[in-house]
Amino acid sequence: MQRYFVSSEDVKGNIVTIQGDDRHHMANVMRFQPGDKVIICQPDESTHIGAIEHIHVEEITITLLEELDEQKELPITVTVAQGMPKGDKLELIAQKGTELGMHALLPVQMDRSIVKWDGKKEAKKRARLEKIVKEASEQSHRTIIPNILPLISLRELDLQQYDYCLIANETEAKQADHSSTFREVLGKINKNDQILVIIGPEGGFSEKELAFLNHDHVYSIRLGKRILRTETAPLYVLAALSFYFEEWS
Amino acid sequence: MQRYFVSSEDVKGNIVTIQGDDRHHMANVMRFQPGDKVIICQPDESTHIGAIEHIHVEEITITLLEELDEQKELPITVTVAQGMPKGDKLELIAQKGTELGMHALLPVQMDRSIVKWDGKKEAKKRARLEKIVKEASEQSHRTIIPNILPLISLRELDLQQYDYCLIANETEAKQADHSSTFREVLGKINKNDQILVIIGPEGGFSEKELAFLNHDHVYSIRLGKRILRTETAPLYVLAALSFYFEEWS
Repeated sequence: MQRYFVSSEDVKGNIVTIQGDDRHHMANVMRFQPGDKVIICQPDESTHIGAIEHIHVEEITITLLEELDEQKELPITVTVAQGMPKGDKLELIAQKGTELGMHALLPVQMDRSIVKWDGKKEAKKRARLEKIVKEASEQSHRTIIPNILPLISLRELDLQQYDYCLIANETEAKQADHSSTFREVLGKINKNDQILVIIGPEGGFSEKELAFLNHDHVYSIRLGKRILRTETAPLYVLAALSFYFEEWS
Repeated sequence: MQRYFVSSEDVKGNIVTIQGDDRHHMANVMRFQPGDKVIICQPDESTHIGAIEHIHVEEITITLLEELDEQKELPITVTVAQGMPKGDKLELIAQKGTELGMHALLPVQMDRSIVKWDGKKEAKKRARLEKIVKEASEQSHRTIIPNILPLISLRELDLQQYDYCLIANETEAKQADHSSTFREVLGKINKNDQILVIIGPEGGFSEKELAFLNHDHVYSIRLGKRILRTETAPLYVLAALSFYFEEWS
């Protein structure tokens, strides 16, 4: 069943009003008729089956029927702090990260980031990323849409806000001998913990950045024995966290 | 150190001759000079440090110095049988799969595959995929280049050739109650086993295909609680296998 995310203003009692892109999608892409059913996801993470009532030129009204008891979210909250990568890699991370259960994407200007966003560019890029995560949330059957956080510099990162911070440092992969840190830190994480995954850009972290991140709840983990590209690393971490918390435990 | 894969004809004793694209890359992109060092990977999976001797217009000669004892490969052999996806998704799978340790990519024409390759198109697409996996092997520090196998239909799949076959079936993700099959099957896999990961195209497997795959060493696994796109599913499986065999065990 097709899934739509609505904002709280769209819902009055058990009636939902759909406008804009979603109205277009329902009427012209899905060609829904009155009586057809959809899944409506609200910001409070509740999900309902809804029946389409009226299809107008400007809006579609839907009546909420039964509430669904869906558990689609990772049992931990994962924010990906991504060193600004080149090209459209941030879009790939936004889409795949959403499928893999990421809760928030935090673009971080790092010393070796080549791309820079100015104010106007950031607004446009954020709008594009927000569209991507919304669509990916619908397709992957999430019950929330990941947050696209405002761009910050690495030194603005509030590490204390998170229970555990994981950094994927390329030099770890090159070491034949490693300390199984990923396994160890997973053993410490509890359900509902806030996890920050910090990924360097193409050139990796600078020495200054590694010094800033040398902190007692920042764990340097290895992601297998090969060198991953910057956009592959967060997907590995998310898949491993999903595997560990959803398929292993 | 930059890594290059050579064929056995390129090596005579401890002298390697580099021509074509790799010669161009060494001379014009990396701007190497005599005495500079590179890593040379041979088809027998041996890797050596090599010193550049002569840079000619047509070829570069390299002397092999010490052999490296690198273990960069997954302890199991993973072939991804990918239902032909749309657009350039097969290229994404080839690149990211290589980073994540895939040994071979087997494109499979499935009932719901929209894309079809004719003979001429297949040759061109294979050449492109081979270039992608070669470059990704160099960048990710693999010691082998994954094989791009010829396109087959699902019914030509020789399941007996593999120790374990895993299929990621979308309906598993939708079931709240699942049997932890992924964990169970991992417990059975031994080092050096041959694993086949079978992924459906955008529309999933047909009923006929699921009947064909209903076989005693084919395990239907869940990849977390969300619905993954066809190109994300093999990356999840590879990351989980890497995590389990390289970071957990």
